Amino acid sequence: MTIDIEISEVGPRDGLQSVRSIMPTEAKKAWIKAQFEAGTPEIEVGSFVPAKLLPQLADTAELVEYAKNLDGLTVAVLVPNLRGLQGAVASGAHKVSIPFSMSEQHSLKNVKKSHDQMRDEIQRCVDFLNTVPPAQRPTFEVGLSTAFGCTIEGEVPEARVIDIAEQVVAMGVDEVGLSDTTGYGNPAQLKRLAEGIWANCGRDKLNGVHLHNTRGQGLANALMAVEIGITTIDSSLGGIGGCPWAPGASGNIVTEDLVFLLESMGLRTGIDIEALFAVRELVQAALPEEEMYGFTPAAGLPMNFRKTA
Amino acid sequence: MTIDIEISEVGPRDGLQSVRSIMPTEAKKAWIKAQFEAGTPEIEVGSFVPAKLLPQLADTAELVEYAKNLDGLTVAVLVPNLRGLQGAVASGAHKVSIPFSMSEQHSLKNVKKSHDQMRDEIQRCVDFLNTVPPAQRPTFEVGLSTAFGCTIEGEVPEARVIDIAEQVVAMGVDEVGLSDTTGYGNPAQLKRLAEGIWANCGRDKLNGVHLHNTRGQGLANALMAVEIGITTIDSSLGGIGGCPWAPGASGNIVTEDLVFLLESMGLRTGIDIEALFAVRELVQAALPEEEMYGFTPAAGLPMNFRKTA
Repeated sequence: MTIDIEISEVGPRDGLQSVRSIMPTEAKKAWIKAQFEAGTPEIEVGSFVPAKLLPQLADTAELVEYAKNLDGLTVAVLVPNLRGLQGAVASGAHKVSIPFSMSEQHSLKNVKKSHDQMRDEIQRCVDFLNTVPPAQRPTFEVGLSTAFGCTIEGEVPEARVIDIAEQVVAMGVDEVGLSDTTGYGNPAQLKRLAEGIWANCGRDKLNGVHLHNTRGQGLANALMAVEIGITTIDSSLGGIGGCPWAPGASGNIVTEDLVFLLESMGLRTGIDIEALFAVRELVQAALPEEEMYGFTPAAGLPMNFRKTA
Repeated sequence: MTIDIEISEVGPRDGLQSVRSIMPTEAKKAWIKAQFEAGTPEIEVGSFVPAKLLPQLADTAELVEYAKNLDGLTVAVLVPNLRGLQGAVASGAHKVSIPFSMSEQHSLKNVKKSHDQMRDEIQRCVDFLNTVPPAQRPTFEVGLSTAFGCTIEGEVPEARVIDIAEQVVAMGVDEVGLSDTTGYGNPAQLKRLAEGIWANCGRDKLNGVHLHNTRGQGLANALMAVEIGITTIDSSLGGIGGCPWAPGASGNIVTEDLVFLLESMGLRTGIDIEALFAVRELVQAALPEEEMYGFTPAAGLPMNFRKTA
């Protein structure tokens, strides 16, 4: 099946790292399998971070191994540094993303690294990947986090984001992604940033965005993304991982609402939205204490809703 | 001040007609005045319908008279028929909208009129307006309701919407508006409908859209609207008038989130968003039993948020 827009489900990573509940590994596997079977082409299954920091994600290696058996699924993971990348490569993940906060203050607070230190870390990651046989080498992406603004620094200059994108692409990373960590982003800004990166790094070096819905702008930003040619959008089933109204909440865009947006526009996601609603029920049952969000699941599909072919 | 996008606040009409509480006339006046002072260029203050049908809006004539004293405000009202239009003209409203449901089943159920009967009613309205001296003649708009789909009929053919727009424009109405009564709409459909109407009726005959957020798509649709050149967007303060998740709820887009979208894109609305947040508090105090929605008021503005000039 041809897909127009690839949805990358980040719930098992970004969602679960933000909730108190620790989902049992078997429940995560059931979620990943069900969502793959509903047609999701890519799932971020976890993060290679020390288990004492994020016990919710301690089973990432096992989940990668499991998910790699789902034929056709792109298995993605997050890593904070070279050590995480080494773990990700050992596990056999297809795609690895490392966040690089465009706000230096946020970077210092979050991963205790200055921008220079982050550049050094990414260079070490690229050097390491060059030692890995091509068949075992994952796609390596730098996620430009806080690219739309920062809760510590406020405005983040667009020129800085574009410069850093250019620097890491020059180092040899495969792609950069634009990440609205704080939910500050707007569609005009997204377009300027993407076009600046494309002009300076090459059209193939930015394909994905990670958007939050903290101020209700998530789907408007997603619409702009697809209008200008972005082909991969991250989202979280049920918006798991944060009340969009709570300060500091992640507030990922809700997969169900994103699929509805795209499919109703005739853009093929490969995802069966009714099957996705069933996955939502499954996950809610496994996370009874967590609230799930989304307008479309609650309102229901329009009468005679037509799926894309 | 130059305005790029005109926000028409429909809370006092569409919001209040959908809630149980009856807001006292003085509280409505305080709301209208405060929202005007926050920079809102147009407010739909009520509807000329029999008081026994909508007791919440029985004071519409008094509100029009009051709002006309707010210098520069466009005072809009809704009417269901010729009788309502006569009341609106007598009150001196600047702008009058009559809904025409593109779903005939919905029209029969809602106003007990077939499409032929609605066309006859609109012709009578135009004939009546032609007897009104130009200085007292309001702008007369036909709101193409259920234009994006219907909960009774399902899909509404786009050709039908465009045909009816052409018919009523030929009769002499000033404008048509596209209304997503059911929250079925998507941005691609909005673009096709608007471009079809512009091609068949003239570029100046469609300037406004009325969008709902029932399935979370409201701001994505609003973004497409401004991208293609729509200049007036309806919204409701705090999304008053319906839980977006309740079946049958109106689910208007939230004025605060819409203002944030536009202003953050650098599109001037004339509205001071912080003053708007204060209006929200005022209205919540006057409607203590009604829930108000909106992501931006809850999350707060971004750090160092820049207002348009």
